[in-house]
Amino acid sequence: MSEDRCHLEFAVDRLGDCSFESPINGVRFISNGDHVLYHSSMEDIQPYLDSGRTPPCFEMAGPRERIYFDPAKIKAGIVTCGGLCPGLNDVIRAVVLSLCYHYGVHEVFGFRYGYEGLVNKYGHTPMRLTPDRVNEIHNQGGTILGSSRGPQDGSGMVDTLQEMGVEILFVVGGDGTLRGGHAIWEEAQRRGFKIAVIGIPKTIDNDICLVQTSFGFDTAVSEARRAITSAYTEAAGGRNGIGLVKLMGRESGFIAAFSALANDVVNFCLVPEVPFTVEVFLKALDDRLSERGHAVIVAAEGAGQDLIKGPRERDRSGNIKPGDIGSFLQGRIRDHYKKKGMDINLKYINPSYLIRSMPANARDSAFCLLLGQNAVHAGMAGRTNMVVGFWKNEFTHIPIPPAVAQRKRIDPEGWLWSAVLAATRQPDLR
Amino acid sequence: MSEDRCHLEFAVDRLGDCSFESPINGVRFISNGDHVLYHSSMEDIQPYLDSGRTPPCFEMAGPRERIYFDPAKIKAGIVTCGGLCPGLNDVIRAVVLSLCYHYGVHEVFGFRYGYEGLVNKYGHTPMRLTPDRVNEIHNQGGTILGSSRGPQDGSGMVDTLQEMGVEILFVVGGDGTLRGGHAIWEEAQRRGFKIAVIGIPKTIDNDICLVQTSFGFDTAVSEARRAITSAYTEAAGGRNGIGLVKLMGRESGFIAAFSALANDVVNFCLVPEVPFTVEVFLKALDDRLSERGHAVIVAAEGAGQDLIKGPRERDRSGNIKPGDIGSFLQGRIRDHYKKKGMDINLKYINPSYLIRSMPANARDSAFCLLLGQNAVHAGMAGRTNMVVGFWKNEFTHIPIPPAVAQRKRIDPEGWLWSAVLAATRQPDLR
Amino acid sequence: MSEDRCHLEFAVDRLGDCSFESPINGVRFISNGDHVLYHSSMEDIQPYLDSGRTPPCFEMAGPRERIYFDPAKIKAGIVTCGGLCPGLNDVIRAVVLSLCYHYGVHEVFGFRYGYEGLVNKYGHTPMRLTPDRVNEIHNQGGTILGSSRGPQDGSGMVDTLQEMGVEILFVVGGDGTLRGGHAIWEEAQRRGFKIAVIGIPKTIDNDICLVQTSFGFDTAVSEARRAITSAYTEAAGGRNGIGLVKLMGRESGFIAAFSALANDVVNFCLVPEVPFTVEVFLKALDDRLSERGHAVIVAAEGAGQDLIKGPRERDRSGNIKPGDIGSFLQGRIRDHYKKKGMDINLKYINPSYLIRSMPANARDSAFCLLLGQNAVHAGMAGRTNMVVGFWKNEFTHIPIPPAVAQRKRIDPEGWLWSAVLAATRQPDLR
Amino acid sequence: MSEDRCHLEFAVDRLGDCSFESPINGVRFISNGDHVLYHSSMEDIQPYLDSGRTPPCFEMAGPRERIYFDPAKIKAGIVTCGGLCPGLNDVIRAVVLSLCYHYGVHEVFGFRYGYEGLVNKYGHTPMRLTPDRVNEIHNQGGTILGSSRGPQDGSGMVDTLQEMGVEILFVVGGDGTLRGGHAIWEEAQRRGFKIAVIGIPKTIDNDICLVQTSFGFDTAVSEARRAITSAYTEAAGGRNGIGLVKLMGRESGFIAAFSALANDVVNFCLVPEVPFTVEVFLKALDDRLSERGHAVIVAAEGAGQDLIKGPRERDRSGNIKPGDIGSFLQGRIRDHYKKKGMDINLKYINPSYLIRSMPANARDSAFCLLLGQNAVHAGMAGRTNMVVGFWKNEFTHIPIPPAVAQRKRIDPEGWLWSAVLAATRQPDLR
Repeated sequence: MSEDRCHLEFAVDRLGDCSFESPINGVRFISNGDHVLYHSSMEDIQPYLDSGRTPPCFEMAGPRERIYFDPAKIKAGIVTCGGLCPGLNDVIRAVVLSLCYHYGVHEVFGFRYGYEGLVNKYGHTPMRLTPDRVNEIHNQGGTILGSSRGPQDGSGMVDTLQEMGVEILFVVGGDGTLRGGHAIWEEAQRRGFKIAVIGIPKTIDNDICLVQTSFGFDTAVSEARRAITSAYTEAAGGRNGIGLVKLMGRESGFIAAFSALANDVVNFCLVPEVPFTVEVFLKALDDRLSERGHAVIVAAEGAGQDLIKGPRERDRSGNIKPGDIGSFLQGRIRDHYKKKGMDINLKYINPSYLIRSMPANARDSAFCLLLGQNAVHAGMAGRTNMVVGFWKNEFTHIPIPPAVAQRKRIDPEGWLWSAVLAATRQPDLR
Repeated sequence: MSEDRCHLEFAVDRLGDCSFESPINGVRFISNGDHVLYHSSMEDIQPYLDSGRTPPCFEMAGPRERIYFDPAKIKAGIVTCGGLCPGLNDVIRAVVLSLCYHYGVHEVFGFRYGYEGLVNKYGHTPMRLTPDRVNEIHNQGGTILGSSRGPQDGSGMVDTLQEMGVEILFVVGGDGTLRGGHAIWEEAQRRGFKIAVIGIPKTIDNDICLVQTSFGFDTAVSEARRAITSAYTEAAGGRNGIGLVKLMGRESGFIAAFSALANDVVNFCLVPEVPFTVEVFLKALDDRLSERGHAVIVAAEGAGQDLIKGPRERDRSGNIKPGDIGSFLQGRIRDHYKKKGMDINLKYINPSYLIRSMPANARDSAFCLLLGQNAVHAGMAGRTNMVVGFWKNEFTHIPIPPAVAQRKRIDPEGWLWSAVLAATRQPDLR
Repeated sequence: MSEDRCHLEFAVDRLGDCSFESPINGVRFISNGDHVLYHSSMEDIQPYLDSGRTPPCFEMAGPRERIYFDPAKIKAGIVTCGGLCPGLNDVIRAVVLSLCYHYGVHEVFGFRYGYEGLVNKYGHTPMRLTPDRVNEIHNQGGTILGSSRGPQDGSGMVDTLQEMGVEILFVVGGDGTLRGGHAIWEEAQRRGFKIAVIGIPKTIDNDICLVQTSFGFDTAVSEARRAITSAYTEAAGGRNGIGLVKLMGRESGFIAAFSALANDVVNFCLVPEVPFTVEVFLKALDDRLSERGHAVIVAAEGAGQDLIKGPRERDRSGNIKPGDIGSFLQGRIRDHYKKKGMDINLKYINPSYLIRSMPANARDSAFCLLLGQNAVHAGMAGRTNMVVGFWKNEFTHIPIPPAVAQRKRIDPEGWLWSAVLAATRQPDLR
Repeated sequence: MSEDRCHLEFAVDRLGDCSFESPINGVRFISNGDHVLYHSSMEDIQPYLDSGRTPPCFEMAGPRERIYFDPAKIKAGIVTCGGLCPGLNDVIRAVVLSLCYHYGVHEVFGFRYGYEGLVNKYGHTPMRLTPDRVNEIHNQGGTILGSSRGPQDGSGMVDTLQEMGVEILFVVGGDGTLRGGHAIWEEAQRRGFKIAVIGIPKTIDNDICLVQTSFGFDTAVSEARRAITSAYTEAAGGRNGIGLVKLMGRESGFIAAFSALANDVVNFCLVPEVPFTVEVFLKALDDRLSERGHAVIVAAEGAGQDLIKGPRERDRSGNIKPGDIGSFLQGRIRDHYKKKGMDINLKYINPSYLIRSMPANARDSAFCLLLGQNAVHAGMAGRTNMVVGFWKNEFTHIPIPPAVAQRKRIDPEGWLWSAVLAATRQPDLR
């Protein structure tokens, strides 16, 4: 397979020829020809072969024998944007340790409070990051750099990077953040400024396209399980007890779905991908209460948006804020049983901040380490305008545009949702 | 010291002479003369001695050599009332195991959903409790019996007990529940029905008078610590980040105070016992933000009630519900910084349901075991109209009336509050 | 691609035609043509295409539209063998719930204490498994069925199955157990007894070939991380402190390697796949102690076996027991520093039982649920002599023989070991 | 009551008159007349009154209005000795923060590796301790100062203290350490060097006399509960499964006893205070296995010492090391069932290092904070040759000699052991 043909699909931009030798010893370097197929079955690949095209595939991540930047001279920066997510400090730490210990880079800067830290007007001073500074930060949640939502002026950000001489920028964030990274790269290109912009996709909802698992998701499911157990305990402790838990997931219900699988107590799982009507839902709730005396409902943030009236706000990132499904369901449930003259004990739990502020669990911690190392390898090799992905259990390179083109969502006919239906035994709620 | 003189203070009612021998072997029995002093220093005791009175003291709890009830014939019941609290299942389990294994009692009933389970109109069937049924319940939070708030008709409850032949009733709950137990005993006395009513004080807030520590409190502080750490992580992660945590404590701020001690991150601890003004508080918050860029505030549910306008609701137990200090503070803080034109990141966390639904930690679990065993010893010995207390590290008997006469509260000049001030370094907020 | 060609590689045995319709609704059924490629890059696939062969691939797991067994009549059995592993109870539960709720199977038996439960001489009575019996078992570690090591007489086991009329047998265990399942199937085939033998691979070491991740591994890494943190705390607390942790992994060091990645404190990670010499290791330990005053060593059970003299025992499963690397290293380290006249503080921790007895964490719990459901789908569809695998993030069917033909091991030149070297910064210890 | 009479019993040494005013504001100072009675019942006090003596009592700990040292000039030191215990870092942190924030002390030194850090020959440099340095250390287990066992030359230690000008020394440790502190004070007295030696009693076993609870004990019981649950899981998972857990407790079995109460699975609890014979124990084990098929045994380190033959070693602290009850019981149990020809599955767990290296739980964390603050108040007020105690829920001062005169032990006829017997239902094993 020729490398070029693959690039037709997920070709990653490169800053130029790699004139330096990697200082890393004793590992097997990744060749530029190593790729991971997007598809996993011959059925899907055959049409490409039949028409003489190369099936789509990703460049494999990892250390390259020859690199673009001179490690002795390069300066690197890292910025964390958007809401908190378990593992942010692990990623910062992995990037710094890999730059310093693998490549011998001397100067690494942490920009404060998201993209704000890259423009002058906020007056934030970048933090100098050394192995000593970052070595134990992964034991605490959050991000030592701070974060913020929303875009900043691309030109101002490139000014700062040029002034400081930062030639590799690691941006850790979701869709909006990655688009911001893309804008930085476009502006830099215009100026002929050769900067490697490497995205590390952050989405606690696990909804970034072309990425099998994102960091923090596993920790989030663990913590969500705790909250659901509490909701169950409260529900079972009262006559006609109803435990309602709102979980993260604006457009994709992966946290809600996996939490339902990791628990035996969820009776209704509501996600954005699977519509429902209030009437059918309330009828099913009636049945459950009359049979068992209590019920547990888990709703992803973005579930039932078609049902909630009223104008929507936007958050600082410019994302439309979903209508509050928690309040909506509470209201409808209370009204329903008030009308029926039936006493209920409804307990509503919204554990979002408690979940996203956790330190990474062991798995996420190891995953973040590998993610950060691969981001550094990509940056040193002169890749740019890309994000580090994970696909079929291999780390990959993905150009930013296709990664942010759409969201990963639950397939309502796929095995995940089928397993959720089996676990909750909820009826069709449409 | 004659036993009688002690009774002037905390004399516990007895059903009559103890005609049966205890079936328990190999332990040292408590003599009826064993008492625990209320005071702990000679300075406090001297005035009593000087005036020829016996200093106040509690009857010591524990197994008696002679008991009032015939274990072969007695039937016992247990009921759990009010909000959830870690350790409820431990208490149920301890009572059942002690009745069965220590005394050989054959029939123990669990009344469902609080006092509702003792009146006919709700139609709840009592649950038969055996060692096998209860043996592993302490691994889960909540109460297997269910609970409810609010009083029920005393006469109806005594009807049920008489019909079923239940002659020992264990009531697990707070103030209102204990008052309900007192009412049952009064009604039974009127009828000449000899029933032992033994209260086990349940207050996650640790605010029952004459009781040094109540079960569940320790677990609650542990979980509150988790929530506060999350609030700190969120606060530190945003520019001008403010983490606000509302904790349980309607009239007493013990959970808030101890959580602040168990943490290094709380900057403001607000409790019902120590008044504050909004202006001084906001000024102190300004100072903190300008110095450190973030702040963590912990507020007990009942803090600042004089500041919150508007009529108060009552919960089903008839307790006045406190005005919502969480919403109040959020509103005032947002307004304040809006006026100042200063961007803040305020994150509000209300972990109450997550805290109270936890299973008991190791300490609370052991404590509940001892509490339940002592309740059984008291009931079998024919004590009644009393609660099991814990004082100066000894288990005690307390008549219900003084136990519910007032609340235990933080002394604003005592060592606890002084340690909180030292830990938070918050200024005087009045 | 024709289905037949795939079978040349990983063809799974089938009992016969599927004459019954699946009772499952509302899910997308897996077609018999759905397969997952063994390879993940075109580079690896091309040679097959060039020579006209179909690249190797696995049959995809999942519910089939038509099934082999009549759900109304079928009886199923499940048995757990070998050492404990987090998630065993989750798997039992998932199998029982899926049989009962998805297919309406009426009779499911749990055989006690591994293959012992399938032969008469031990006198174990099978446990009747119902949804009520299994619904909460995943909250506790271990296996409610009990387990044992070692093979039993195949003929006797098939006798039992035939007598009871059990036509689907789920065997949960490692290599030896799966070989036992294969033997049962061979004996049954000889007798013309149509039994579906479905293996669910259990290896806390994550060393089963053709299976990307095995259940329990993730929980094991979490708990191992705790133990390593303790070892570090002990090491750092004493002058010349050395913390030595032995972890599971007789032939593959995945737990040790991933635990080292999930931690920042491991200085030496020793695994079976990467040889070392004592002299070089002790020299490196000298250097570490003189630089930092303490050191943490993590050794997989099977590391350094070439260095340990003496005859090897076999465990009851017939596996050769590895020489005790923990004692060996302790001895060598103590001798070394005794000779040097240097005081050390060596603390040895062997957390194996504490790790393997944990309940599954959230991820493993969800994974076990899916694994068990897929095992049931395979059995009901009349597959046999196979194990349920997980490959490229899809559940698969694998014939037993290739799955037990060899072990999965760490590639000393691959990305995992390279990341471990980077994290520990240990030198080449050969 | 005159203060002097109290001193007949537990009088604490004082360096001299308090010439300085405390810089602390807004708290209620403790008066020198505030005392806590040793006894808690009138029955015990009456004989003293009858014979005209003052009942024994402790001086109450807390801030004094007038202090002995000039905060502006004083230098303080702290040293941690002996084995690790949860909360050591909390205590260090509390002492430093209280010295700096309450009193404005400028110089605080941490001596490294126990008393070694106080003598020249080891060459350890004291660590300068500031609020910034210690602020987050309580999140990690162990001690940032390091520790060591064993005494050092008193004269050499006083030399160091005099040279450095350290006039308050906080010693955190057990019996031996406190005796070392006493020796320092005696040597200093000889030299006319006015040093406040304040002990903070550290005993994970909770066996220090005159101290109701010691720090770390509660965390230890929590972790021991985890290990016991593992032992139970292993025992229940095998035919004739026996889980054996060795817990800390050389002379006192409090950890074993409380862990048994905090668990429902312990069948035999063996402690140093209650003798047993092997024959009776094995007979009881037979009964348990034949009834239930598995058994869990918890043995404190010092249990059954009369049964273990052979010479005893001493550890570096000079304490006699107990014979290994774990190996002893394993051997006897294996022999017994070998003779009977009965297959057993014995799993032995020794979680000591995993327990003692934990960070303090919430309760211990708050307790350590208060303990450290009270130690500082005592030192600043010129108390010396004393330890900070906790008695009847109040912090106290105790002279070192009576605190180390004997051990606190379980009373075999008291409520604790009686509750353990009730929980385990073990027979008399003598």
